[in-house]
Amino acid sequence: MPTMEQAKQWYEGVDAIHDFSHIQRVYHMAERLAKIEGADLEIVHAAALLHDSRGTMPGSNERAEHHLASAVFAEEVLGAEGWPQERIEAVQHCIRAHRFRDKRERPESIEAKVIFDADKLDVLGAVGVMRTLGYALLAGEPPYVEPSQHFIDTGEEEPGEPHSAYHEYIFKLRKIKDVLFTDAAREIAKERDAYLAAYFRRFAAESRGEM
Amino acid sequence: MPTMEQAKQWYEGVDAIHDFSHIQRVYHMAERLAKIEGADLEIVHAAALLHDSRGTMPGSNERAEHHLASAVFAEEVLGAEGWPQERIEAVQHCIRAHRFRDKRERPESIEAKVIFDADKLDVLGAVGVMRTLGYALLAGEPPYVEPSQHFIDTGEEEPGEPHSAYHEYIFKLRKIKDVLFTDAAREIAKERDAYLAAYFRRFAAESRGEM
Repeated sequence: MPTMEQAKQWYEGVDAIHDFSHIQRVYHMAERLAKIEGADLEIVHAAALLHDSRGTMPGSNERAEHHLASAVFAEEVLGAEGWPQERIEAVQHCIRAHRFRDKRERPESIEAKVIFDADKLDVLGAVGVMRTLGYALLAGEPPYVEPSQHFIDTGEEEPGEPHSAYHEYIFKLRKIKDVLFTDAAREIAKERDAYLAAYFRRFAAESRGEM
Repeated sequence: MPTMEQAKQWYEGVDAIHDFSHIQRVYHMAERLAKIEGADLEIVHAAALLHDSRGTMPGSNERAEHHLASAVFAEEVLGAEGWPQERIEAVQHCIRAHRFRDKRERPESIEAKVIFDADKLDVLGAVGVMRTLGYALLAGEPPYVEPSQHFIDTGEEEPGEPHSAYHEYIFKLRKIKDVLFTDAAREIAKERDAYLAAYFRRFAAESRGEM
C-alpha cells in the first residue's frame, strides 16, 4: 500500500484544484462511504491516493485523459509493490471509471462507485465553490457570464458565448447529486448541494448588481 | 468623461479579479453610495472606471504600486479630454487613496471615501468569496492552510507558513467592515460580511474534514 508521504510526492506542483488536499478529502470521504457500503478498504484507499496522479491541469490537453494516465501509473506503483494482478485491475477500474464526462467505463464494482461518489462530493459544498471558481480562473475562464437561454436549455454555448464558472454550475454541478451511485453519498450530497446552489444563486444576483 | 466602451479596453486581458466586471460593480456601487452621501458623480464615475487601470495582476511586482500607476494613467486620459487640473487631481486622489495596504495617502474627500468603500464592498459577499479564492489561486497560493496561533494573534506567518486564501480572510477581509468611511457602505457591509464569514467558517470545517 502506498503511504500518504509517498502519495504526497505525486501531487507536488499540481494545481490547487487537484492537489494533495483534494486527495486527502477524497481519501477520508471514500473511507467513510466504504465502511457504510461494505467496500474493500485497501482497493478504495489505493484508488483514492492514485486517482488524479497524472495530468489534471485545468485546460491542459492531457486533462481529458487524466483518468487513463493515472490508471497506467497505478499499475506501475502497485505492480512494483507486488500486488496481485486482479487487485491492481480492481484499483484501475476505480480510477478509469471516476471521470464523469467519459462514459466508456462506468463504475461497476462497489469500490469504483465509492471512489466516484467521494470524488463528486468534493465539488459540492464550500469546497465545491472554491474548486469550481478556481478551476475556471486557472483555465482562463471568467467567473460569471450570464448564460444564454440556448445554453440553459441544451447545455451548449451559442457561438462566441464564454464558458464561465457559473455555466459549469448550471451545466454540471447542479446535477451531481443525481449521478451518485451509493445511498451513503446521496445522503451527504443533499445538504452540500443545497449550499452550493444557494451560493451560485447569490453569486449571480450580486454579479448582476441585484444585491 | 471616458465611456464604458473606452474603459472596457483598459481592462482587456486583465486577470479575473480586477477585470471589467469588477470595474462595473464598483462603478454602480460607487454611484449608489455617491447619491446617498452627496458626492460629485463625475469625479466618482471617472475614478471608478480608472482605479485599477494599470498593473493589478495577482503576485506581480507592479501590484503594490498599481494605484499610483493608475493615477498617472488617469491624468493622461482626463488631460487629453481637457479636464481642469483640479478635477483631475480630485480623481487622482480617489485612485491613490483606494489601496488599503498603502497608508501614505488616505481618503480625504467624500469622493475618495466613496470609491474606497465601493471597492472594499466588492471583496465581501459571494463575489468576495470568488475574488479572495481566485486571487490566491492565480498568485499560486493555496486555498486553505490552517493558520498558526502566531498568525491569528499577530497577522504574521511563522517561518515556512504559507499565506492561503483563508489567511487572507483572517488577516484582512474579516476587518473590512471596520475600515469603511461612509455610513451607506457600512450598512451594506453588514449582511455581506456575515455571508463571507459564514462561507469561510464552513470552508475551514470542510477542509479539515469536519463536515
